[in-house]
Amino acid sequence: MDFDRPDADSPMPYPPLPQSPRRRSFLARGAVASLAAAGAPAVAAGADKLPPNVPPHIPQWMREPGAGFLQPPYGLPSPFEKAVVRKLPDQPAAFPTATRTPLQSLFGSTTPNGLFFERHHAGVPTIDPAQHRLMLHGLVERPLLLSMKDLLRFPAVSRSHFIECSGNSMAEFKAPGKGSVQDIHGLLSGAEWTGVRLADVLEEAGLLPSARWILAEGADAAAMTRSIPLAKALDDALLAYGQNGEMLRPEQGYPLRLLLPGYEGNMNIKWLRRLKVGDLPFQTREETAKYTDLMPDGSARQFTFLMGAKSVITTPSARQVLDGQGFREISGLAWSGHGRIARVEVSLDGGRRWQVAALDGPVQRRALTRFRFPWVWSGQEAILQSRAVDDAGNVQPTRAELVGRDGQNSVYHYNAIQSWKVASNGEVTNVHV
Amino acid sequence: MDFDRPDADSPMPYPPLPQSPRRRSFLARGAVASLAAAGAPAVAAGADKLPPNVPPHIPQWMREPGAGFLQPPYGLPSPFEKAVVRKLPDQPAAFPTATRTPLQSLFGSTTPNGLFFERHHAGVPTIDPAQHRLMLHGLVERPLLLSMKDLLRFPAVSRSHFIECSGNSMAEFKAPGKGSVQDIHGLLSGAEWTGVRLADVLEEAGLLPSARWILAEGADAAAMTRSIPLAKALDDALLAYGQNGEMLRPEQGYPLRLLLPGYEGNMNIKWLRRLKVGDLPFQTREETAKYTDLMPDGSARQFTFLMGAKSVITTPSARQVLDGQGFREISGLAWSGHGRIARVEVSLDGGRRWQVAALDGPVQRRALTRFRFPWVWSGQEAILQSRAVDDAGNVQPTRAELVGRDGQNSVYHYNAIQSWKVASNGEVTNVHV
Repeated sequence: MDFDRPDADSPMPYPPLPQSPRRRSFLARGAVASLAAAGAPAVAAGADKLPPNVPPHIPQWMREPGAGFLQPPYGLPSPFEKAVVRKLPDQPAAFPTATRTPLQSLFGSTTPNGLFFERHHAGVPTIDPAQHRLMLHGLVERPLLLSMKDLLRFPAVSRSHFIECSGNSMAEFKAPGKGSVQDIHGLLSGAEWTGVRLADVLEEAGLLPSARWILAEGADAAAMTRSIPLAKALDDALLAYGQNGEMLRPEQGYPLRLLLPGYEGNMNIKWLRRLKVGDLPFQTREETAKYTDLMPDGSARQFTFLMGAKSVITTPSARQVLDGQGFREISGLAWSGHGRIARVEVSLDGGRRWQVAALDGPVQRRALTRFRFPWVWSGQEAILQSRAVDDAGNVQPTRAELVGRDGQNSVYHYNAIQSWKVASNGEVTNVHV
Repeated sequence: MDFDRPDADSPMPYPPLPQSPRRRSFLARGAVASLAAAGAPAVAAGADKLPPNVPPHIPQWMREPGAGFLQPPYGLPSPFEKAVVRKLPDQPAAFPTATRTPLQSLFGSTTPNGLFFERHHAGVPTIDPAQHRLMLHGLVERPLLLSMKDLLRFPAVSRSHFIECSGNSMAEFKAPGKGSVQDIHGLLSGAEWTGVRLADVLEEAGLLPSARWILAEGADAAAMTRSIPLAKALDDALLAYGQNGEMLRPEQGYPLRLLLPGYEGNMNIKWLRRLKVGDLPFQTREETAKYTDLMPDGSARQFTFLMGAKSVITTPSARQVLDGQGFREISGLAWSGHGRIARVEVSLDGGRRWQVAALDGPVQRRALTRFRFPWVWSGQEAILQSRAVDDAGNVQPTRAELVGRDGQNSVYHYNAIQSWKVASNGEVTNVHV
């Protein structure tokens, strides 16, 4: 839903009404009130006595039968939601490689598959699952060649996890971006994944004693490859084929994706076709020339796998305009590659005072967690911030702390506290404080 | 994914391989095995030494760049998943009123919005959310007229809940249906819902002391109406606008649906436009002429709100064919309108012996719960059953117990144990035992 769309031009099926008389109302001033005070539409037989001078109120969509079933019978969003889509970069690149999730329009802690962010290195291959194979070889007793049917015979597991691109929010290292929360932080999504424990498949193959690392290779034209520490493979890694209840979408790796909960997005190799077990990292392009973090002294950090504790307020957020004083709920997402979100704190004054937000349960490990904080806006300028703390004790840093530690050469692993400035006219902008 | 599609006709990018030598393998006999024993394809530089006489193995989709971004940028399933859709009745009615969820093809405990079952009474209205209003009147101090913007100002809550049509599996009162689990049990889905607590909105309006029931009315051409007990409205009822992270889909009530966790599907009024508080039930068509349960003595039970404890094995299930002996995971869904699933038991012999299944966590109240049970099929005939027990102590009945109690006049609230017969040739059929 487009929260900002004015509805003043639309035909009103009910008359406008004066404001609610209640003191502790959740309702916006002037937006809603007593029917009794204002006169109300005629309603069905048996209803209250209501004034007679009220316009017809039965909307057009009740006056005729509605639409039948879609063909093919796979549902789609309402046409009124057409602005709620993934977003390509504002400045089109020769080869656009990412789309971003509309975080400002989403609820709860699930990202619908149609809105899950994308990052490709050579476009989206169209893979026939009947032909697709996963090869497992290298330092194993029994090399394996597995079809999707074979993988579906293994015991399955379903778990909710986020995926965040390590380059999410990268422009914030330099200067506050002018875009929406989708533009700034939209390389982040979460889903319920279903698949096979990689540990089970490795046991099937039998690891040799010298095994330490695994090369994972995708079946796209980039043959995207990364080195995975064996400890992670044996911990919570999945060979995922399901996402939010159905098969993976093509752009998420159909029919098979390596899922490494909490690790930077590109390591969750899509279109997974090959796992080679070795004793050392494989030093692929994507862990040498790319996806290393350039430090202030010119050195580069390699193998920075885990995404840090992070949070962002999604409502209200940049490019939104508060439509009046009064109660509103501040709401956002928190996540950490290190574990479970233990606490989220919210500040209304740019970080001077902090208050604990409520978390939607069940709070899951390495998963998006929705937080909520009640706020009555007085019409004064405010700077809204959120700060995530995970159960390993990691605290989301301020921007000054992050830049002081990592400098401004890097483009990866930006997890600093986001500040949204609310102006007295209600406009929300991205600021660095 | 189509589990039953043979892939023998497809070009094989890897050679066929002999069976795995392992004793306790999860892999199907003959389906998978050692690359070393069979010879393996040439792979990227630095790979193991492999036999030279192997066909090219780089699939076509790695030889050229993949597809770009969809327009509009809202993702869709792979074209290879086109059989995984909602299903209309086999025998087309003059006005088909329901589609069914493909339970046999789904994973975990979430139903994707595009596959969530539908039941309409007058088609799907196309509602402009800027024009939509919810009226709350009757036995309240302050009648309210709420826009979607108003509702979005209230504190929100997100929770996972199932919805099941009270007529789900109705044909099983009479005789075993010939269809798939989708045909028999597919009027069942689950989602993460986001909305406003109805209790909060009722508090805003102020209930009068005589308030006992609430009439809920939909904005479809049927003006679908049901009476809701006030106790339920004040307990866990939601005014839901979000489903699995995004706005409700049109066929699920866009932009607003009454969610009554655990209550029969039709009471979860879609396109919600009116709530009238009264002191007695309103005796609408849908709770007098329809949606009552005809007992053996000719009397009818009215207001049978809660859906019973129920479960069904989805894999394997009717119309599937087991493709060989060996390990496979039995998997299914359990749910109860009374509360949380406490336990699911599985029988392999038509109910003589029962064993406890594993439950995927977190197990939530009035939500779909995935259960799993490991099985090594010896090739012998078997009758597979599952039995749900909820935390209120309700035990899913056998079909004989259910029919003995409720007779065969009713078409609602069929929650008996489902029996799938596995023949020695692997064919799975629906049987009454």
